[in-house]
Amino acid sequence: MTNIILRGCNGKMGQVIADIVEADDDAVIVAGIDVSQNRVAKFPVYQSFQKCNVKADVIIDFSAPVNVEEMLDFAKSQGIGIVLCTTGLSKEQLAIIDEASREIPIFRSANMSMGINLITKLVQEATYILADAGYDIEIVERHHNKKVDAPSGTALALADAINQVLNNEYEYKFDRSADRVARSKKEIGISAVRGGTIVGEHEVIFAGTDEVIEIKHTAYSKAVFAKGAVQAAKFLPGKPAGMYRMSDMMD
Amino acid sequence: MTNIILRGCNGKMGQVIADIVEADDDAVIVAGIDVSQNRVAKFPVYQSFQKCNVKADVIIDFSAPVNVEEMLDFAKSQGIGIVLCTTGLSKEQLAIIDEASREIPIFRSANMSMGINLITKLVQEATYILADAGYDIEIVERHHNKKVDAPSGTALALADAINQVLNNEYEYKFDRSADRVARSKKEIGISAVRGGTIVGEHEVIFAGTDEVIEIKHTAYSKAVFAKGAVQAAKFLPGKPAGMYRMSDMMD
Amino acid sequence: MTNIILRGCNGKMGQVIADIVEADDDAVIVAGIDVSQNRVAKFPVYQSFQKCNVKADVIIDFSAPVNVEEMLDFAKSQGIGIVLCTTGLSKEQLAIIDEASREIPIFRSANMSMGINLITKLVQEATYILADAGYDIEIVERHHNKKVDAPSGTALALADAINQVLNNEYEYKFDRSADRVARSKKEIGISAVRGGTIVGEHEVIFAGTDEVIEIKHTAYSKAVFAKGAVQAAKFLPGKPAGMYRMSDMMD
Amino acid sequence: MTNIILRGCNGKMGQVIADIVEADDDAVIVAGIDVSQNRVAKFPVYQSFQKCNVKADVIIDFSAPVNVEEMLDFAKSQGIGIVLCTTGLSKEQLAIIDEASREIPIFRSANMSMGINLITKLVQEATYILADAGYDIEIVERHHNKKVDAPSGTALALADAINQVLNNEYEYKFDRSADRVARSKKEIGISAVRGGTIVGEHEVIFAGTDEVIEIKHTAYSKAVFAKGAVQAAKFLPGKPAGMYRMSDMMD
Repeated sequence: MTNIILRGCNGKMGQVIADIVEADDDAVIVAGIDVSQNRVAKFPVYQSFQKCNVKADVIIDFSAPVNVEEMLDFAKSQGIGIVLCTTGLSKEQLAIIDEASREIPIFRSANMSMGINLITKLVQEATYILADAGYDIEIVERHHNKKVDAPSGTALALADAINQVLNNEYEYKFDRSADRVARSKKEIGISAVRGGTIVGEHEVIFAGTDEVIEIKHTAYSKAVFAKGAVQAAKFLPGKPAGMYRMSDMMD
Repeated sequence: MTNIILRGCNGKMGQVIADIVEADDDAVIVAGIDVSQNRVAKFPVYQSFQKCNVKADVIIDFSAPVNVEEMLDFAKSQGIGIVLCTTGLSKEQLAIIDEASREIPIFRSANMSMGINLITKLVQEATYILADAGYDIEIVERHHNKKVDAPSGTALALADAINQVLNNEYEYKFDRSADRVARSKKEIGISAVRGGTIVGEHEVIFAGTDEVIEIKHTAYSKAVFAKGAVQAAKFLPGKPAGMYRMSDMMD
Repeated sequence: MTNIILRGCNGKMGQVIADIVEADDDAVIVAGIDVSQNRVAKFPVYQSFQKCNVKADVIIDFSAPVNVEEMLDFAKSQGIGIVLCTTGLSKEQLAIIDEASREIPIFRSANMSMGINLITKLVQEATYILADAGYDIEIVERHHNKKVDAPSGTALALADAINQVLNNEYEYKFDRSADRVARSKKEIGISAVRGGTIVGEHEVIFAGTDEVIEIKHTAYSKAVFAKGAVQAAKFLPGKPAGMYRMSDMMD
Repeated sequence: MTNIILRGCNGKMGQVIADIVEADDDAVIVAGIDVSQNRVAKFPVYQSFQKCNVKADVIIDFSAPVNVEEMLDFAKSQGIGIVLCTTGLSKEQLAIIDEASREIPIFRSANMSMGINLITKLVQEATYILADAGYDIEIVERHHNKKVDAPSGTALALADAINQVLNNEYEYKFDRSADRVARSKKEIGISAVRGGTIVGEHEVIFAGTDEVIEIKHTAYSKAVFAKGAVQAAKFLPGKPAGMYRMSDMMD
């Protein structure tokens, strides 16, 4: 049985995670941390880690990029790992997290769905074969109209994974409307579509001479991301200190 | 039998049009106009209209936005119409063309394919119903890596057709990467993908609550655009002076 | 305020409808009918109409094709209409329903989403233009792996709408694996994909010479169908006897 | 310089191959074999191998499944390999070809495009991960309305590649319209869409809980297949006897 502390338990994703854990026989949420106290949970909820003295095996963090330090201190003092799903962290915060990973295991991923992590691998392989053969690479992502950042963190992570295969020699191109030039070979175009309640779609396009290959992932609910986080929470306890990601769990 | 003068006969589209007319029992190319003399055609080719004294029923123009005036003078002197497929015309040239349409019939369209013209109508109808129901509208187009303008003229024409239904109250959004705000209701997002030899794809996305409608057109060859031009060339002779477009031919 | 009796209230769709009505200020569920008594509702639930003496303005039926007669008798005795969302009804049952529509208003649709009803209209218009121009028409639908019927009722309704434009001269083709012949002009191919938890996707493909037009609808949740049913329930009271469908509500 | 004999030189694919070889500095067609003598080629054309005494390095066969024996005899007598692109071969013919591969190198592939061969590998990897995770696998292919076989040889080859990963325990399902049962876990659905002049599209769909992964290949011209055949023709001379396929060339 994995005992979980859930930071951000009263947010949308927090509630989805709570539901998934409740249906899971091998995990339980022993405490929640949330500044907002807007609803009644089936576990005790604390406004901060300082007020929480519950013992746990792991923390899942699906909140906002504030007070990360407090969470890291708590985890280090208990000697437990963190599944870090919060996005939008600053460079300074990322450095502190990196530092903490010398003492505790930290699992971090831009996108917790198994599907996205699989296509990341497939896209890298395709890049390895197709870039040399002269194919152009483009990414199109679609999300709901409330999302404030564009392109999505997942689209950027896919581009980074592609670029890694290409010795990081490619540039990202978000907009071509101001240019009057043919496409440069060494660029990855990234387009962001926003509308309605679309949960999340990512498509990588490899376009060659008279041939196109597309690798696409569609998420139909937020539960997809929550499931991956819970899976990671069950994977992490007992692991040595260090940074972990989805591919570690898939091998 | 429709006698056609083809301006831009030695360009890529010119050759495609020549092939289509050759296979057409009701039309024939009686002369070509092209500054370039790079190949042998099955009809006489002149470097300019001034050197051409051939009688015809109509002109198809698939060239570059230079010497438009010379072509208009020739057409007016013969009293014949023009199918104008050249893009990138300046405001001044458009004004001169408009002026000429008081004397001769001029057929002009951003995209000569029947399919694009049909979806333009469908997209307008969908907009009429869905915009009020709170759907967001986005356009994604894909073209080959040699295309220098973005978004495509056809994507902009689709956006204009949508905006016309919306009292021209919507703004076009080409890039969201610099913003950190949720999507504004009164915008139409337009994304341009560039890669390989893709002939031309246009997709209009209507995204509502838990529901998405997509209307998509794919062209598999340039012949699609040439066919529409030849169809228009057969339609135009005998029509009164004025500006014509695809919808006139479809009714 | 519209008072609704909900038949099939304890099924999956019944629960979704109950949630939507609860959030709606202009409608309320005054009673549920369900043979299964597996959960506690916020309204009284009866095992049959015979045991129910609640007054209402309209019935929503999202159940199974049994005891339809009992429901019709109840509606006629109270003089109220029915929104009939149950599928898989027999020819005999459809005849009885038709008969009942002389006394009460009955709203019936294979698919209650506004999006599907809009694309039905668009698809008919496209057929009107494109079938004559030699385009082939195919439908591909996708649903979850629990769905027992194939193709979906909605795919068949789309095919019927297309065929209506074609004077019902086209045949439906579900399988080509046993043939060794080129496609017949007068057929509509219908393919059914089944997998995972896909809520429902319908795509109509018009394929011509070097040109393809696609019109696609994607539902991301069952709520899409429930919303249409509730909308119909609010539309029906006070209407004269007769058969109604989505297009009556959209005009 | 690779000297090629092209069997089926007067068919559609034969002409495409001839054009590609003509533009290739490292290969030349030294003779054609075709029963039909309907056009003038830039190389001598013989009605059968018996009448041909031209020396070559390799044969490309893009014809019909007749007189395969005659071609094998010729190749064995010259000690040269064959790139075998003809489909619809009988079991007996396949056995004879297998037998011949003990003496000469034979390159055989259901689909000669590099893209299809790449996605075959990607699809196998995805299957390896996703089948265990409970994802359902479906294939949808689209081709022009003249194609007489369905599903395409490439779709079946993709299904075979998937099934190989699954210990060949899955069955192929071409039609669900006669059933009234939920999808069986151990099946691969294969749907064939036919219309217009679509060159060839293959999509493999992995559908899980609230998540779908799609891997898609689109061919925009027949040249895609011809190029792969010419590439294979340049690869084969000098190789030891045996059966070869695309993956041998990609490694």
